[in-house]
Amino acid sequence: MTAEHKYKLTVTYDGTHYSGWQIQSNGIAIQEIIQGEVQKITQTTTHLIGAGRTDTGVHAKGQVAHFVVKDRLDLFRFQHALNRLLPEDIRVIAIEEVPLKFHARYSATGKIYHYHLHLDPIRDPFVRQYSWHIHHHFDVELLRQGAQYFVGSHDFTSFANDSLRGAASRNAVRTIYSLEVVVEEGGVRLEFKGNGFLYRMVRNITGTLVNVAIGKFQLSDIPRLFKAKDRELTGKGAPAHGLFLMEVEYASKIIQNMEVK
Amino acid sequence: MTAEHKYKLTVTYDGTHYSGWQIQSNGIAIQEIIQGEVQKITQTTTHLIGAGRTDTGVHAKGQVAHFVVKDRLDLFRFQHALNRLLPEDIRVIAIEEVPLKFHARYSATGKIYHYHLHLDPIRDPFVRQYSWHIHHHFDVELLRQGAQYFVGSHDFTSFANDSLRGAASRNAVRTIYSLEVVVEEGGVRLEFKGNGFLYRMVRNITGTLVNVAIGKFQLSDIPRLFKAKDRELTGKGAPAHGLFLMEVEYASKIIQNMEVK
Repeated sequence: MTAEHKYKLTVTYDGTHYSGWQIQSNGIAIQEIIQGEVQKITQTTTHLIGAGRTDTGVHAKGQVAHFVVKDRLDLFRFQHALNRLLPEDIRVIAIEEVPLKFHARYSATGKIYHYHLHLDPIRDPFVRQYSWHIHHHFDVELLRQGAQYFVGSHDFTSFANDSLRGAASRNAVRTIYSLEVVVEEGGVRLEFKGNGFLYRMVRNITGTLVNVAIGKFQLSDIPRLFKAKDRELTGKGAPAHGLFLMEVEYASKIIQNMEVK
Repeated sequence: MTAEHKYKLTVTYDGTHYSGWQIQSNGIAIQEIIQGEVQKITQTTTHLIGAGRTDTGVHAKGQVAHFVVKDRLDLFRFQHALNRLLPEDIRVIAIEEVPLKFHARYSATGKIYHYHLHLDPIRDPFVRQYSWHIHHHFDVELLRQGAQYFVGSHDFTSFANDSLRGAASRNAVRTIYSLEVVVEEGGVRLEFKGNGFLYRMVRNITGTLVNVAIGKFQLSDIPRLFKAKDRELTGKGAPAHGLFLMEVEYASKIIQNMEVK
């Protein structure tokens, strides 16, 4: 029996200059870059599997990925070597060995996304790549009230784009544990915590909530949008550059049951 | 007698992609871009005079500039039109009419600069263009103690580079009113307030203070560096991308004495 070792990487990146985590069109994918450097250091052809595919221009402060190699790694040295090779807009902020049954995507029990809305009349150059600038009169209290309609278990068909990943998500029921509106310098951020999110779901919900906050939608439209199960009615989704994948959650026993062989 | 109107602009910019406020080498200067758009809107050949020339890669949150035109401007509409024409990493955040005797550079009575030091072991991709990442063991208390040596009126010859602007500053005495060390997420920032700063002075003082904080210089070296009047001894200056021009101060009477004609 060949001994193998599985490693979990926690990754932060500024998505501005990438075509997303995995290639969706032309451009450079973040997964590809990290995998290339991991292969260079470990001298193997291991594959890097991410917890989820962030779109072109989306950022991450806590993306998670795993890979398997035959030889045990010196974690400190490996992380240091990897960060030296990576471009400066991608950094591995943590690495740990995990049980072979751990899977970055299938073991995930929840995710946290933040979406930043910039509400100053004049768009701040320093957040231009990290927030969505709203020009309209904006009612934060309506945003807060609207957000509560999305908390709980719902069929989110109306808030999911068709994915190029096949008709994977026949079951469109997801649970949002909380959706907080937090005031921050220059605007507000939406903090989504849920057990999983359909393709474009965070951006589509954000787009709908912004339509409520600027008076284009009524609060009472939201239940109707859910019922219609029609993506066309919910309006334009929020742009990619305001979105951050903050954290991927795992049942702690998956990781803690690790037996070091 | 031709009536003329003078306008004061307050400007913020992300300096990452520019060759500085005014052209120093090849590249695009921020002054040039704004002046071009002002000329386009006002249909005149007015010149834009800045409070000071930030170097290639230096940022601003409160640069000030003035220009003169024959016709009175509708301030709200002018600012809106200007911001629509400017690239998104430059924004005019305020505009006001000022007396003709006002001069962005010569009327300035003080300036505030911030310098950001990033001290996390792993460099955060999101501040890579807005802070200097220090890899060494860093003693914030030594930084704080060192900073106090620079407060007050001193001959700053040892902390000024020769400027391409001619031998302008024969008098190298400047007054730093305060130099505070403020802890912020991921590091610290140095807040410089002074009546004026010589060429590269903020970056050279920061470089010296970092040398103190990482143990390369002793606190007791600082008085000797002042006395030597030799730029060569003070070590490498801090890089441009951590520096922000925050504010240019003017005696309030210069602006408040404005008589609207």
